[in-house]
Formats: sequence, C-alpha cells, structure tokens
Amino acid sequence: MNKLKIIGFDADDTLWENGLYFRQAEQEFAVLLRNYIDPDSLHARLYAVEMKNMPTYGYGAMAYTLSLIETALDVIWSQGKVDSGILKGILGLGRGILSHPIELLPDVERILPVLQARYRLIIVTKGDILDQERKLSKSGLLPYFHHIEIVSEKHEDNYRELLRRLDVAPQDFMMVGNSLKSDVLPVLNIGGQAVHVPAASIWEHEQCEKPSLPYYEISRLGELLNVLP
Amino acid sequence: MNKLKIIGFDADDTLWENGLYFRQAEQEFAVLLRNYIDPDSLHARLYAVEMKNMPTYGYGAMAYTLSLIETALDVIWSQGKVDSGILKGILGLGRGILSHPIELLPDVERILPVLQARYRLIIVTKGDILDQERKLSKSGLLPYFHHIEIVSEKHEDNYRELLRRLDVAPQDFMMVGNSLKSDVLPVLNIGGQAVHVPAASIWEHEQCEKPSLPYYEISRLGELLNVLP
Repeated sequence: MNKLKIIGFDADDTLWENGLYFRQAEQEFAVLLRNYIDPDSLHARLYAVEMKNMPTYGYGAMAYTLSLIETALDVIWSQGKVDSGILKGILGLGRGILSHPIELLPDVERILPVLQARYRLIIVTKGDILDQERKLSKSGLLPYFHHIEIVSEKHEDNYRELLRRLDVAPQDFMMVGNSLKSDVLPVLNIGGQAVHVPAASIWEHEQCEKPSLPYYEISRLGELLNVLP
Repeated sequence: MNKLKIIGFDADDTLWENGLYFRQAEQEFAVLLRNYIDPDSLHARLYAVEMKNMPTYGYGAMAYTLSLIETALDVIWSQGKVDSGILKGILGLGRGILSHPIELLPDVERILPVLQARYRLIIVTKGDILDQERKLSKSGLLPYFHHIEIVSEKHEDNYRELLRRLDVAPQDFMMVGNSLKSDVLPVLNIGGQAVHVPAASIWEHEQCEKPSLPYYEISRLGELLNVLP
C-alpha cells in the first residue's frame, strides 16, 4: 500500500446520485402503461429489452429511453396503435434523466480536497460521453481531477490500457466505486487495489459474486481516509 | 511544416462511410411517413428537431433515432394514435445505422502504413463512444493509430486539451477531415495545420464559411502524401 499514486473514482452513484433518476423514470413509465401491464411484469420486460440492446446501445439515458420505447411498443403491440401521449411521455422521461441537477453524495466535497493533496485523482466512468461531461461540469468537481476517462465498458482491458497510458503500475492504482462488477473485480484481477462503497440500490446488470481477492468495503466515502496509507 | 509530429484523422466520412447510412435511413423514414407528409417538409421538421435536441443528445445514431421518433410523433400528432409498425420501423432504422458493415474510403488502406512509418497517427472523432469503438474495431485500422480520442464536440478547447495531454505543440499537429467546421477551422484557430478532404455530401450542421487562415484542400486521401513534408 505504500506506493499508492493514483486513485480512480467511479462517478454515477459514487460521487453523485444517478440510479435514483432511472428508478424514478421507471416508476413513471409504469404509470404511463398502467392500463396495459402491472409494474413487476413491466420491469421484467424492460430489463430483458435492455439486456438485448446492451451490445448495440451500451449504457446511458439515450440507450435507456430507446429501450423504454421498444418495451412500450412490445407491451401495446396487440393493439396495433399506440397513444402518442405515452410515447411523448417516454421521451420526456429520458430528457428528464439527462437534465436533472447534480446531487453530490455524502462526504464527496469534504474528502476530495484532502485526497487531492496526497494523490493524483482521476475519474473512470462509463456511459454517454456528452452526458458524463455535462454532469462533471455541473458537479463543480472537475478541479479535483487530473484526468477524466469515459469508457464504453469497465473491463480488465479498459483498466490495463488506461494505466498504461497514465504510466502507472496496477499496484500503485486504487479504484473506488459502487459496483463490484465494474469498479472492484476487474481492478483486483489486474493487480490493482479497490474500495467498494455500496450505493442505496444497484441495477441488476451490475450485480455479481463477491470477489475472492481482498478489497476494502466502506459504507460511505468519508471512511476512505481510514483505509488509505 | 518541418516539425510535423502528429497527424489527427477524423473517422466518420474521412476514413469510412457514415453519412450515407443516415441519408439512407432518412429516405426510409420518409417512406414510413409517406401518408402524412412529403419528404422535403419532413426533412425540414427532422432537422429542426435534431438541432433542438443537440445540446441534450449530442451526436450519433441513438440521438438520431430519438429525434426521428420525436419528429414522427409531431407529424402524426393530430391523429392522437400512432401505428406501432411505424415506430418499430424507426427503431429498426437506428439499429441499422449502428450495425452496418464498415466501408473504408478510397486510399485509406494504402496511405496509413506509409504515414505510420513517418508520423504518429491519432484519431479524433465525436459521437457515441460504444459506436465509435465498434466501428474502429470493425475497420481493422486500430494498429495504425497511437491514440484514439472520442470527444463530445470538436471545439478549439477540445483540441487544445488533447494536444496538451499528447504533449505536442499546435504547429507540430495536423488534422485531416471532411468537416471545415469540426476538423479544419478550430485546429487552424489554435495554431495547428489542417487538411480538408470533402465528403460526397455534408450534413447541414457541419457547414460553415471557408476559413480565412491557410489550409490544404485535397480531393481524396491519397493526395495527402503530396502535401506532407
């Protein structure tokens, strides 16, 4: 732990709220389709469509909106015609996710200046590039970060390539994030360190088995100061 | 010109076909809506919706698909109900753009090995990160490039920040692309060199006045070898 040089932070649901807005949108989606399907069945249908579309659309609010529309069309298909208001409502839900204000999570503003004085901080996030840049800019947190990396996936190869470009050895890198699958497991697997800060809830797609390699588990970001060298 | 170190290439419509697929999708879109509106009026409506959505959605096939849907709903609005088949057709058009095979433009495969032996080559492209990565991977051109930069916009600031990270002076950088607005003008304005290779047609949004600073204009990529030091 003595050589730690760079700390990477996930952004969505690690530095600021994000999944919350998707869950709220899904609740409103269920209201829009209440005459056709119950919320639990709708959730299952939507998740199946999202997973089918993942290789083509990837992550983010635009991908989500397209999957909401496809799900609605599938659900209402038997009717042959769809109420324009439902579809306009869905487009509005997507735009709402893309334009919500940024709510920083607890401790973020307190710990970043402290950490910045001791380590090089970077952000490693996935999703729409424009949306991620907008959130970063709105967050006011940009001055704390030396580098922002927006990737299509957080796989071992993505981390390896990033560390190569940053010219840092895996053991000198620590990733902090809310997803075991994206922020912890791949980083441990390439020889880096990782800290898991669980979010209030987690999207099914990000769920995975607990890693067998050691990592830190903290309940809020402020505890990061206790686990760092 | 003696110190040229890095050549940046735009990707869509510079290295491979791209706008063609959007134009084909728009023709099919007009067919889907032929009972409601004529193609020219539809084009004007769509472009207005795209420009309204640009700050929120940015560039790329998902943004385009969402704008197609919004335009269709606006056009058919008076009916209150929309044929599901039209909307499923639109989702299919978007997926088609995201999954078409890569068609390299003339000279690309011939000149990249020659240039790679003399300069550091990079790609500077904008759009969906997943879509751009997929096209790069499918193109087989990745081995020629030292760095891939996917940006949300190609403004002067984006180029300045990129050159800072690559540790290269603007006068040692040359950008090659089909858009005066995105590939030529901002690069000239920050003191770099630029080569314009017009594409078969250009999206209205990328049109701009001819730059007043000097740049190279070539008709196909092979001519690049004649203008380089």
